[in-house]
Amino acid sequence: MAPTPARKSKTRQPQEAETARTSLTPAAWVEAATEVLVDEGIDHVRIDVLAKRMGVTRGSFYWHFKDREALLQAVLNTWHQGATEQLTARLAGASASPAEQLRDVLSLPFRGRSATRAARIELALRAWARRDEAARHAVDASDAARISYIAQLFSALGFPVGEARSRAFLLYTYVVGESLMAGQGSAAQSGERVRFVERLLHTPL
Amino acid sequence: MAPTPARKSKTRQPQEAETARTSLTPAAWVEAATEVLVDEGIDHVRIDVLAKRMGVTRGSFYWHFKDREALLQAVLNTWHQGATEQLTARLAGASASPAEQLRDVLSLPFRGRSATRAARIELALRAWARRDEAARHAVDASDAARISYIAQLFSALGFPVGEARSRAFLLYTYVVGESLMAGQGSAAQSGERVRFVERLLHTPL
Repeated sequence: MAPTPARKSKTRQPQEAETARTSLTPAAWVEAATEVLVDEGIDHVRIDVLAKRMGVTRGSFYWHFKDREALLQAVLNTWHQGATEQLTARLAGASASPAEQLRDVLSLPFRGRSATRAARIELALRAWARRDEAARHAVDASDAARISYIAQLFSALGFPVGEARSRAFLLYTYVVGESLMAGQGSAAQSGERVRFVERLLHTPL
Repeated sequence: MAPTPARKSKTRQPQEAETARTSLTPAAWVEAATEVLVDEGIDHVRIDVLAKRMGVTRGSFYWHFKDREALLQAVLNTWHQGATEQLTARLAGASASPAEQLRDVLSLPFRGRSATRAARIELALRAWARRDEAARHAVDASDAARISYIAQLFSALGFPVGEARSRAFLLYTYVVGESLMAGQGSAAQSGERVRFVERLLHTPL
């Protein structure tokens, strides 16, 4: 499907495209698509827009993906792997103590630019998920996996299974909300509330 | 700015537009704009799109609004008044008991279709707020007003001011999260967790 480079052309464009085509990875397309999704919304994630942005031909897209839908599914899979599977594995590997892992989860919204970027991506995905079944599925699966991971930590601390799930849900909505509402209150107030949330969620009923 | 109806035209369109122009209220434009924002995203909220949707001329828009920006500001003001000012006044008026008012706030995500619609609007506004200063301001102001209202209830229950604010923030993020993640768990599980959240948030540290 990719066009044959026009060797006779006087412009350098086709040759540049040829170089770019072989050097661009699927990951580069996924990254560009994610950026456009976050900055401009899903309607702007179009093959022609991305190709222009990356300075390659539209045809070179088809070396890596069957169609736009395949690219969008790769965006969702890449996000789920990075922001959920790898994240929970990293948190679980960083400490053997469930209480410390919970503290690490609670610290996620306060990790500066990487937290802001993650929150922007998630919000764009949630907005898209309201209109798209595949996005809805990916977001639901990520939420479920994260809540399960946190629930295991509360279980390990000795809370009964049902209550551990409720505590996990509450902690998770706090973390999501803290990311969504980064502008609420001073740094001192957000420090105070995260310490409060940690204490309260360890308090037995 | 509105065009003079072409009286000689054989089609009935201009006359219909004339009738619609005089009958359409600013509220009708705000409602249509909000629907398009939620269903298709902010980029699709354009005067020509809305006029076509409502079957009126583009020019009739200018009877009510100076420009698109004025319409968008009206969308934000209308949302803030309905979803925050009127809502908190209604909740406060429904019961004198702070504990019952808190229970009413906790029940908001479970109010069927109206809750789903409110959640869709809020998510669209939050996504838009990531890219727009006026939307950001409206969302921040609504979050702050709701958290303040809930904090007053915890203060009335006897919690110290700082702690009342932290409890309010946690309860509010739970309510927002429960709306965002309506698909998580069975109805029995979400019933269990809302009862858990209510109990835990009344538990002293």
